[in-house]
Amino acid sequence: MSFSVAARDRATAARRGTLTTRHGTIDTPAFMPVGTAGTVKAMTPEELTGLGYGMLLANTYHLALRPGEEVIRRLGGLHRFMNWGGGILTDSGGFQVLSLAERRSISDDGVVFRSHLDGSRLEMTPERSMAIQRALGSDIAMAFDDCPALPSPVDRLQAAVARTALWAGRCRAAWDEAGGALFGIVQGGSDPDLRARSAADIVSIGFDGYAIGGVSVGESAAESRAAVEMTAPLLPPDRPRYLMGMGTPADLVEMVALGVDLFDCVLPTRNARNGCLFTATGRLQIKRSEFREDDRPIDETCSCAVCRHYSRAYLRHLYLSKEILSMRLNTLHNLHHYAELMKQVRAAIETGDYNQFRRSFRARWNPGTDPDDAPALVATPETG
Amino acid sequence: MSFSVAARDRATAARRGTLTTRHGTIDTPAFMPVGTAGTVKAMTPEELTGLGYGMLLANTYHLALRPGEEVIRRLGGLHRFMNWGGGILTDSGGFQVLSLAERRSISDDGVVFRSHLDGSRLEMTPERSMAIQRALGSDIAMAFDDCPALPSPVDRLQAAVARTALWAGRCRAAWDEAGGALFGIVQGGSDPDLRARSAADIVSIGFDGYAIGGVSVGESAAESRAAVEMTAPLLPPDRPRYLMGMGTPADLVEMVALGVDLFDCVLPTRNARNGCLFTATGRLQIKRSEFREDDRPIDETCSCAVCRHYSRAYLRHLYLSKEILSMRLNTLHNLHHYAELMKQVRAAIETGDYNQFRRSFRARWNPGTDPDDAPALVATPETG
Repeated sequence: MSFSVAARDRATAARRGTLTTRHGTIDTPAFMPVGTAGTVKAMTPEELTGLGYGMLLANTYHLALRPGEEVIRRLGGLHRFMNWGGGILTDSGGFQVLSLAERRSISDDGVVFRSHLDGSRLEMTPERSMAIQRALGSDIAMAFDDCPALPSPVDRLQAAVARTALWAGRCRAAWDEAGGALFGIVQGGSDPDLRARSAADIVSIGFDGYAIGGVSVGESAAESRAAVEMTAPLLPPDRPRYLMGMGTPADLVEMVALGVDLFDCVLPTRNARNGCLFTATGRLQIKRSEFREDDRPIDETCSCAVCRHYSRAYLRHLYLSKEILSMRLNTLHNLHHYAELMKQVRAAIETGDYNQFRRSFRARWNPGTDPDDAPALVATPETG
Repeated sequence: MSFSVAARDRATAARRGTLTTRHGTIDTPAFMPVGTAGTVKAMTPEELTGLGYGMLLANTYHLALRPGEEVIRRLGGLHRFMNWGGGILTDSGGFQVLSLAERRSISDDGVVFRSHLDGSRLEMTPERSMAIQRALGSDIAMAFDDCPALPSPVDRLQAAVARTALWAGRCRAAWDEAGGALFGIVQGGSDPDLRARSAADIVSIGFDGYAIGGVSVGESAAESRAAVEMTAPLLPPDRPRYLMGMGTPADLVEMVALGVDLFDCVLPTRNARNGCLFTATGRLQIKRSEFREDDRPIDETCSCAVCRHYSRAYLRHLYLSKEILSMRLNTLHNLHHYAELMKQVRAAIETGDYNQFRRSFRARWNPGTDPDDAPALVATPETG
C-alpha cells in the first residue's frame, strides 16, 4: 500500500491524497460504503464502481460467522467471491465487542462471542482476527481493538487503551506483510490524556495507517468531533488517517478539516432503506404525505440516475409498498450523494481554501433532527 | 394496436407474430413479467429492457388502492410514473375476485372489496375497471371478468360465464377506443361446454385480443392445459391469444403449441425471491448445503450477468443472509431464463418444426416437485 498527499489546505489540516492498494488507487479524502456481509446492501459492485467508489468496508466478524472465512478463502478470496475489483478494508471484529456487548466476554487474551446467528461460540483474538482478514484477502486489515461504548467508567477506558495497545502489538507480530496493509486503531474515549496515551502506543508500534476508533459509540456528535480533534494531530502526517464508523455529511465536511482521509458509515445505506434521503440542503423523509403527488426528483440539483428518472411521488409509493426497488433506488441516491460530496470536498481542498467550502456547506445544510442520525444507531453494524 | 402473424408451425398451432402498441413492438409468443404495484419486484425498467422485455403486466386492483389511479393519472400515467417506455398490459381486477375471495362480495353489478391494505371499501364494476385502466394509461386493458377458483360447483361456473359475458359487454361499451386496446376474457373452468359458451359470448362482442382466464386457479396442471386446448381453437386466428397467469417453462413450451401468443406469471420473479432458480434442465434451490462451496454459476449454459459473475456459493450466502442483492440477482437470472426460452421458442417456430423443439425441451427438462409450482401458489398475485 502506498499513500501520498498531493495538496494541503492553507488554513485547515485538510489534505488531498491518493491511496493505492493491490486493488487500485482511490482519491482521498474518501468515503467507503459498508458491505457487512460481502455486499453493500441493495447494490451491485458495478453500481458502486459507477458511483465512483473504489474501496468498501467488509466485516470480519460477520463474514467469519457466515459463510466462514475458509469458505471465502477456498473460493479465491472476498474480492472474487463478491465480484468486486476495488479495494476492501476489513474491520477487525473489535467493533462487535461493543455492538454485541451482551453476547461476549472479554479478557486480555481476546473476546469470546456467542454468534448472533445460531449461538455458536466464536473466539476472537488478535491472531485470529489477523488470520480471518488474511483469509478474506483484505487490502487493508485493521488491528483488533477493545472499543468500549460511551459513557464508560474511566477505568474501563484505561483498560481498553492498554488492551488495545497489547493487542495491536500482537496483531503487528501476527500480520504477514505479504497480506496487505495493516492499520492500527487509537482508543481513549473523550479523554485527551487517554487519547494521547493510545496514539503514542499505537504509533510506536508502527502501522501502514491509523484509525481513530471509539467515536460515534454513544457520545454526542460534539464529543465525537472533539475526540477526532484531539487525536488526528497525534498521528503521523505521512500515513492515512481513518475515522471509523462516522458519519453524517456534516461530520465528513468537518472531520476532513481535521485531517481525516478515510471514512466509513452505514448512514447513507441504512437511512436509504428507512426512506431518509440526502439532499443538498439536508434530509427528506420520502414517506411524508406531502410527496404524494410531488413530481419533482428527490433533489433538483442532483444528477444521479434516480433523480433523473423518478419522482418523489413514485419513490414514496415504492417505500410505502415495501418494494425492493425502493431500497435500491434510495441507496443509489444516497451513495451518489456521498460520492458527490466527497468529490466536492477534494476539489475544495485543491483550491487551497477549504474553509470557504465549509462555510458554504454550513449555510445550505440543515442538520435536522432525524433520529437515524443519533450516534447510538449510527454505531450499530450494517445488518438486518 | 396491431397484430400480425409472420410464421406458422407446420404441425402445431404455434405461431410467430408481432404485436404493436403505442409503446413499441414485441415479438410473440412473448412472456410478460408481472409488475403488480408499478414495479417488477427487485428490477429496474432498464434491466427489463436489457433482458429483452418489451411489455409487462400491472395490476389494476393494487394500483387503484395504492397510490390510486388518479394520482398516477395526474403524474402522467403509469409509464411515466414508473419510467417504463415499453408496453403495459393491465389486468382488470377480476383476478382479485378469486385471490381475495374472503374480502369481497360479488353481484351482477360488480364486486365490493375490503382493501387488503387498510380495510377501506373499493367497488369494482366493469365501468370502474375501464376508468382505472384508462387513468393508468394502459396499452392493453383487460375486460373485467368473474374468475372463480377451481374446483367450483357447476352453477357457480355457469354464473361466472354469464356474468363475464355481461360485464364484457359493459366493458366494451365503456371503453374509449382512444385509450388503447381492450382484450376480452374467456371463463368456463374445465368444462368444454362452458368454455365454448364463454368463447362464443366474448368473441361475438368483439375485442382486440382474447384471453384465456380461469386457468391455474386451483386445478391440476393437466386440467389447466386441457382448458387451454379446448379454448384456444375457438378464438379468432387473426387476434392475439393471451393465457393469463400461467406458467412454468414447460407450460410455456406446451401452450405455445396450442396457439398462445402472450403469457404472464409471477413464477420466475416469486421463485427467485424464494431462492428457486431455473436452469436448462430444471430447478435449483440455492439454499441447499451442497452449494456451500460450489464455485460454478447457477447454470453453466446461461449467458446472463449473474451466471457470468457470481458463484452458487455466493448466491447461497446472499440468500441465507437475506440480502437484497439475493433477490435482485435471482430475479435477474430467472427473468433472463424466461426471456431466452421465449427467444428459443420463437426461433423454433420459424424453423417450421416446433415439435422438434418440444421434444428436445422435454428430454432435458426435469419438472421437479417444487411446491412453488403448485397451481394454488402460482395463482396468487405478486404481492408481499
